[in-house]
Amino acid sequence: MATEKSSNEYEGLLPFCLRWVKPIFTKLPAMAVELATMTKKLAKDDTRRVVHALKVGLAITLVSLFYYFKPLYDGFGTSTIWAVVTVVVVFEFSVGGTLGRGLNRVMATLLAGALGFGAHYLASLGGDTGRPIMLGLFVFVLAAISTFIRFFPKMKARYDYGLLIFILTFCMVSLSGYRDDEIAKLAYSRMLTILIGCCFTVFVCVFVCPVWAGTDLHHLVASNIDSLATFFHGFGAEYFGLLQEQGEVGKVDMQKYRTVLNSKSNEESLTNLARWEPRHGKFRYRHPWKVYLEIGSLNRECACRLEVLNGYLQTKRTQMPSQQIHGPFQEECMKICSELSNGLRELAMGLRKMVPPLTAKAHIEKAKIAAENLKSHLEEWRFEEMNNNKNALEIVHVASLSPLLLDTICCIVKIADSVQKLASIAGFKAVEVPSSVAPEQDQGSMQPCHGAVLVAHQVIMIDKGAPC
Amino acid sequence: MATEKSSNEYEGLLPFCLRWVKPIFTKLPAMAVELATMTKKLAKDDTRRVVHALKVGLAITLVSLFYYFKPLYDGFGTSTIWAVVTVVVVFEFSVGGTLGRGLNRVMATLLAGALGFGAHYLASLGGDTGRPIMLGLFVFVLAAISTFIRFFPKMKARYDYGLLIFILTFCMVSLSGYRDDEIAKLAYSRMLTILIGCCFTVFVCVFVCPVWAGTDLHHLVASNIDSLATFFHGFGAEYFGLLQEQGEVGKVDMQKYRTVLNSKSNEESLTNLARWEPRHGKFRYRHPWKVYLEIGSLNRECACRLEVLNGYLQTKRTQMPSQQIHGPFQEECMKICSELSNGLRELAMGLRKMVPPLTAKAHIEKAKIAAENLKSHLEEWRFEEMNNNKNALEIVHVASLSPLLLDTICCIVKIADSVQKLASIAGFKAVEVPSSVAPEQDQGSMQPCHGAVLVAHQVIMIDKGAPC
Repeated sequence: MATEKSSNEYEGLLPFCLRWVKPIFTKLPAMAVELATMTKKLAKDDTRRVVHALKVGLAITLVSLFYYFKPLYDGFGTSTIWAVVTVVVVFEFSVGGTLGRGLNRVMATLLAGALGFGAHYLASLGGDTGRPIMLGLFVFVLAAISTFIRFFPKMKARYDYGLLIFILTFCMVSLSGYRDDEIAKLAYSRMLTILIGCCFTVFVCVFVCPVWAGTDLHHLVASNIDSLATFFHGFGAEYFGLLQEQGEVGKVDMQKYRTVLNSKSNEESLTNLARWEPRHGKFRYRHPWKVYLEIGSLNRECACRLEVLNGYLQTKRTQMPSQQIHGPFQEECMKICSELSNGLRELAMGLRKMVPPLTAKAHIEKAKIAAENLKSHLEEWRFEEMNNNKNALEIVHVASLSPLLLDTICCIVKIADSVQKLASIAGFKAVEVPSSVAPEQDQGSMQPCHGAVLVAHQVIMIDKGAPC
Repeated sequence: MATEKSSNEYEGLLPFCLRWVKPIFTKLPAMAVELATMTKKLAKDDTRRVVHALKVGLAITLVSLFYYFKPLYDGFGTSTIWAVVTVVVVFEFSVGGTLGRGLNRVMATLLAGALGFGAHYLASLGGDTGRPIMLGLFVFVLAAISTFIRFFPKMKARYDYGLLIFILTFCMVSLSGYRDDEIAKLAYSRMLTILIGCCFTVFVCVFVCPVWAGTDLHHLVASNIDSLATFFHGFGAEYFGLLQEQGEVGKVDMQKYRTVLNSKSNEESLTNLARWEPRHGKFRYRHPWKVYLEIGSLNRECACRLEVLNGYLQTKRTQMPSQQIHGPFQEECMKICSELSNGLRELAMGLRKMVPPLTAKAHIEKAKIAAENLKSHLEEWRFEEMNNNKNALEIVHVASLSPLLLDTICCIVKIADSVQKLASIAGFKAVEVPSSVAPEQDQGSMQPCHGAVLVAHQVIMIDKGAPC
């Protein structure tokens, strides 16, 4: 009651304002801490972000030298600003992004400048009355057509910015020509300042700690395969309740596969950017970037299966916490998971190091054999034990993993095939299989590596083209 | 041999060019036809694209009137071009996009203009030597900080364009001030022309066939739920090989759920755009757009399960084409699929028409009951039939659908809960359940609608908050 009364009382302007401002000021320290934490996290997650921010600052400062030195400024006059604008709008995080935008901007400006000049000339034939009508018509038609072309998926992916700049420059040149007779000079200086801006941008972007979209895509796809491997690394133990024995290692990481499910747009944009990039590191000019999309799509298909397998874990936790089904089923299942984890991890490592993943297929083949064993166990089983066991549903629940695991293996075989395809198209060179690969992995059920390499060769020979 | 010889012969420039140009010309008609087909398809798929292109043309033509009428042009002079530039870069497909970009541009220009003016004043205190150094420092620091802020996820989603324009305008005003003393006039006319450009754009965008991102998001989510329904509509019949009896209806549509899997980025960008939009149609200003993201995420989880169920269809087709497992299993499975399909379809329709989906939960509850029946059938079964049947694996394969279907039902219950949440937050008004809903659906196992509404009410009462 007291509070209500005081809030209803007429009060002075100062207390009224204070009542509004006070909560903001009391919240300020917490907000500042949150902001600082977030900034630190963003910078720590990827230090290239800080470098990029400094690079943009550097490029703009460099291009603004045109203003500070009079002889440079006098050459272009007020058009100098276009060089600065170009740096601001063209500088992207990755080299591919910057080159793509830069080329789009230069080519579109060139083409639209020429067309705008032509439109200005044609319109001037129409006399004082016809000129604005013809100009208006040209602008309308060109803007409408270019805007519609932006809806074409292929154009949108690579030339969207170019089409925007095309409309912009065309309007700029043709309309300015209506009031300004020095249109040729305008088009020329705009073109030249944009070129200068692009040169500065590309120089800083490529030569100061460059960020290559292609390398990012390459590592993204490899780490996505790794996330799938991590799931299998933990799944068997988690499902059969062996995790208490092994400790809590890997429990949190198992959910990493979820990021794979939503990686499509990121992969697609990186692919589009990577296609603008020149030869760099181990990547040639015409590196088969599109194969990464193929692998990415298969990764997502596999991650879908993992989502369902993860659902099995939830059901098991809530519905049957204490029951454990042992026997040949558990052994084979654990073997499948371990082999799939090893196989996927080697695929990821092969991709990352750009060597053919020779031993991966051997692991997957072993998982396949274990799955076939599981199948025949089930066939032989004839449910004699089941008749003794009242709760048959539980056994069905565990046994129902079998088709799901088989389906997942099929998916992983496809991933291995695609990585193999990438390796052969991109010409991954085989180096001696590093023995250091082994300790990083779950060695539980692995054969010695040298034997595996031999098996792998055979498997690849036999398996090529065989449908899963 | 003959071909090789002729290509090695020295030839004139004209035949050489012709040999290169000819294939292009022979391909031209095919390319033209392809282009025409694609254009037609793009325009037919969404006629709003054509309207949008015409709207952009119209807005630019309108704003270019400033050039044609001398009194208008004299007011701003060369700054007039900023109005045209603004229309070109601000006009987006949806009202939300346009308003977001427009507000970003105006606010950023205002803020950066003021700051640029301040920087210019401060730098001028430094004398002839200090001025360029201080200006360079300001530009560097502000550009670097703003570029880094663009990495903050929340800023990137809504204010990315604003931050770009902020850097651009700040550089423009502060640098131009170095060479041009009329900096206040520059900042003022840039601000005014940008405002004029934004007004033209928003006017045409909102008042000529507006495209609302919110409405698009609403329909996208509803049609995604519909896609899930379509899958269940066909799944039971397809799995038990009844499709030959029913005909090939719905076979192609079943794969529509795949588009749901990749809808995340589209839904997120539409949500961001929708938040800029004012009240329109049945949508209030603070419509709970974020709940759509929740439903969308659940849709994708469900689609993942469908991907696995679809995998079952493939296995069935390749591995056991002729075997059919009948009995209580098939009946309950068909009932589950049909009820889920009906339930999802009613959720979609409720969402689309903005009425509470009263009968949907009843259908899902029936599916749940059928799933429980299936479970108890399996428990009672005790595999007596199985002992007679040599191929136990097949029965396990079919029986293994049971946990998967249960898992999927859990997922769909969550979707229904989220739609219910949206309905209550957004205040969907209940209208009389349209009897026209029924004929569109598979009526195979539906209770009469009026009974179902009653059941639905009870179910909602009982089920609220019960974990699945």
